[in-house]
Amino acid sequence: MVDVFPWQLSIGELLSPAVVSSWGIGGALLAEASKAELEPLVLASVLLSLITVYLAAKIGGELCARINLPPVLGELVGGVIVGVSALHLIVFPEGAGETGSVLLKLVETTAGLDPASLLTVFRGESEVVSVLAELGVIILLFEIGLESDLKELIRVGPQAAAVAVVGVVVPFALGTAGLIALFHIATIPAVFAGAALTATSIGITAKVLAEIQRLSSKEGQIIIGAAVLDDVLGIIVLAVVASLAKTGEIEILNVVYLIAGATVFLVGSIFLGRLLSPYFVVLVDQLKTRGQVIISSLIFAFALSYIAAAIQLEAILGAFAAGLILAETSKRKELEEQISPIADMLVPVFFVTVGARTDISVLNPLEPANREGLIIASFLVIVAIVGKVVTGFAVFGQPGINRLAIGFGMVPRGEVGLVFAGVGSASGVLSESLEAAIIVMVILTTFLAPPLLRVVFKSDDDASDGAKKEAAIAASPSSETAS
Amino acid sequence: MVDVFPWQLSIGELLSPAVVSSWGIGGALLAEASKAELEPLVLASVLLSLITVYLAAKIGGELCARINLPPVLGELVGGVIVGVSALHLIVFPEGAGETGSVLLKLVETTAGLDPASLLTVFRGESEVVSVLAELGVIILLFEIGLESDLKELIRVGPQAAAVAVVGVVVPFALGTAGLIALFHIATIPAVFAGAALTATSIGITAKVLAEIQRLSSKEGQIIIGAAVLDDVLGIIVLAVVASLAKTGEIEILNVVYLIAGATVFLVGSIFLGRLLSPYFVVLVDQLKTRGQVIISSLIFAFALSYIAAAIQLEAILGAFAAGLILAETSKRKELEEQISPIADMLVPVFFVTVGARTDISVLNPLEPANREGLIIASFLVIVAIVGKVVTGFAVFGQPGINRLAIGFGMVPRGEVGLVFAGVGSASGVLSESLEAAIIVMVILTTFLAPPLLRVVFKSDDDASDGAKKEAAIAASPSSETAS
Repeated sequence: MVDVFPWQLSIGELLSPAVVSSWGIGGALLAEASKAELEPLVLASVLLSLITVYLAAKIGGELCARINLPPVLGELVGGVIVGVSALHLIVFPEGAGETGSVLLKLVETTAGLDPASLLTVFRGESEVVSVLAELGVIILLFEIGLESDLKELIRVGPQAAAVAVVGVVVPFALGTAGLIALFHIATIPAVFAGAALTATSIGITAKVLAEIQRLSSKEGQIIIGAAVLDDVLGIIVLAVVASLAKTGEIEILNVVYLIAGATVFLVGSIFLGRLLSPYFVVLVDQLKTRGQVIISSLIFAFALSYIAAAIQLEAILGAFAAGLILAETSKRKELEEQISPIADMLVPVFFVTVGARTDISVLNPLEPANREGLIIASFLVIVAIVGKVVTGFAVFGQPGINRLAIGFGMVPRGEVGLVFAGVGSASGVLSESLEAAIIVMVILTTFLAPPLLRVVFKSDDDASDGAKKEAAIAASPSSETAS
Repeated sequence: MVDVFPWQLSIGELLSPAVVSSWGIGGALLAEASKAELEPLVLASVLLSLITVYLAAKIGGELCARINLPPVLGELVGGVIVGVSALHLIVFPEGAGETGSVLLKLVETTAGLDPASLLTVFRGESEVVSVLAELGVIILLFEIGLESDLKELIRVGPQAAAVAVVGVVVPFALGTAGLIALFHIATIPAVFAGAALTATSIGITAKVLAEIQRLSSKEGQIIIGAAVLDDVLGIIVLAVVASLAKTGEIEILNVVYLIAGATVFLVGSIFLGRLLSPYFVVLVDQLKTRGQVIISSLIFAFALSYIAAAIQLEAILGAFAAGLILAETSKRKELEEQISPIADMLVPVFFVTVGARTDISVLNPLEPANREGLIIASFLVIVAIVGKVVTGFAVFGQPGINRLAIGFGMVPRGEVGLVFAGVGSASGVLSESLEAAIIVMVILTTFLAPPLLRVVFKSDDDASDGAKKEAAIAASPSSETAS
């Protein structure tokens, strides 16, 4: 009687809106199609999206694990396959162009649920999946913070700062100058594209480091520290460039505010956190109801994430700081065990949606419109890699350190670069080819970094020691499959 | 410089939209305020909502645990306090009346972010919190299924069926007849209100049973079995009544379809599931990447939830069936451990939002407009309790069973009753006073059942044995706080 349902609209091909009117309780509910009545459709489409995300993540991850590539790369590729580039199973309004989505085209050709209701369901589902992905990266950074060693991080602080600053200045200068000199691009768009080359995607790098169990190595801690600082510097650069693009001048006050805010937040939260964490443990020990450790920790992590977002930093910085602080308490081990399944559930949503949002059609050289962008992109990719690889040589006073590993660890740009492309596109500064070039640069650095990182770490693999303790967070099989 | 942020709009009192224009990167982003640019505000407001939900759940739960009431009651009351009845911190578009929300009133009086953008953020946040709550109840029923004993459930099947049928027929007949005879209400609205008395809220009962460690007792399994059947019967009753309200006649085909669908789904999924579950274990054992057990299980649980929703049943029935099936595999213990923190994270969102959506102002007897509703409500509450308490005496062939406990276990109506009120209100069948009476009935049965259930189970507490094995799912403190 009813074999296809309207919520399948949001996953593209499966749709047949002709049966829409048979949905609901005796068809009575959808006639009005108010927000509350569409709620079950949103839930159903979220369930279907999560199933798709998990299948893509697991199949991609397992295949990569078998050919000795990082599983996270498989999750990204799995996301590309189910996303806007191929199957259109996981699409977002901005990717589908909203009016151009498979969903709405089908509605136009068939007479089902009214377009406004369908759009409501699609938007609702996208909103939920987006936020689940963002919660995923928050949980990931919280877990990374929990696995990190604050004392080690402070010890490598000067090296991390050197890596971060070189990794912002070199790609920015090389990129901007190159675009002006070689491609005769005007100053403001060149500065914008140069800025897009700066910020490292901490999520991808940290996940790969965890997978190869190098998160707590000296190289790992320098990379994490530098990536965190890089994130802060990237936000400042974005603020500068966005105001430059908008008004033609730099709002000094805003830049000063951001720098001061970031410093106060990171130093202040860690200082205050260490001071107050014993009280946290006492409080948790007095709770009698289920979930006392995990809920108390999530309140703390979400509160710091919120504060970080509120002072115009990124939420993930707050989550990372919360993890660092709680790692120093006696609850660390219990918390690591409990956060692990939550991370398993939410983190793949982040990586798969990063892949799903990526439109790899801009990489097709057979499309003449792509060619100008691809030539610029080749230049940007080279600058992006070279500009970060050199950062390894900025590390001082650490003889015998794997400089190449640090450099490659800083390569992936991920979502941060896409934010630059999006803001640039919205403010009309970037030409289409330059925007496409930035996207290509982000794709290639993101997808190249995990295998490269693995190769350079493997090169000194036999010399390694003491890097086994983060097995809990790593991609290794569970104890019973391993045995 | 910036101390209050636009996303706080969604949590009412904290707002100052005058600073809205200072949000975003150098103020550049919000000028356009497109969907993608509002994304960080949605995330931030979700974070703030989750913090509020967790604080309400923990404070309420801990206070209840200390005065020996079920923690879940504390979560519901905590929800009422942060919800539409009091603090307005967690509100939903339908509760706030959309145009009448604190949020939009403030926008009218101050000139901040444009109303459309604010509404977008508010709706996005509500959508995400609603779906998280629904995922919470899905995870809860999955966990309940995992803790249940399929063989025991099949053994008590006939008793559970008797309880379910009596618990639908008696309240429906008494309620409808009483409303017509005593209050001279027309037949169709009386039938509708009578129908709203039928469906038990499995979530609340199951949570209380788990908290008092009686889930796997014979009484507990009869209640769970009956509540599951009740859910199915309730959906069928709703379909019948909704079509009656709409067209004045019953769509026989639709009713037959629902009954057949429910039977095929429950019997079929459990039969096929038991047949295929060994292959599931073999597959999971071959996976090499992190989270293999939990992700594979979530795919299975979400798929069954989706199918249940797709054939117009409730998603939670699918989750329960998935739990039952996986409970019979060798992965049960590992899965129970891993689902527990996920449940800790998501289940409170469900209970707090149930409380937050409940408008207790209809209970105020000082408001003359409420009085007619309150008189009808008193009648409905009595019928609701009596009509379910008698179900305990429908149990046959079980000498010495706690019949009162079974009866009280069936009392809470929770969200299912609210769906009836919502559908009735939308289709214009229910008068305002009758709708208010249904809401009052739902509130009182939901809030009365947990303490009543605890009392009647306590009465034979010393005679109890072998009910300790569900300690993992119960509200007891963790091992280290207990010691």
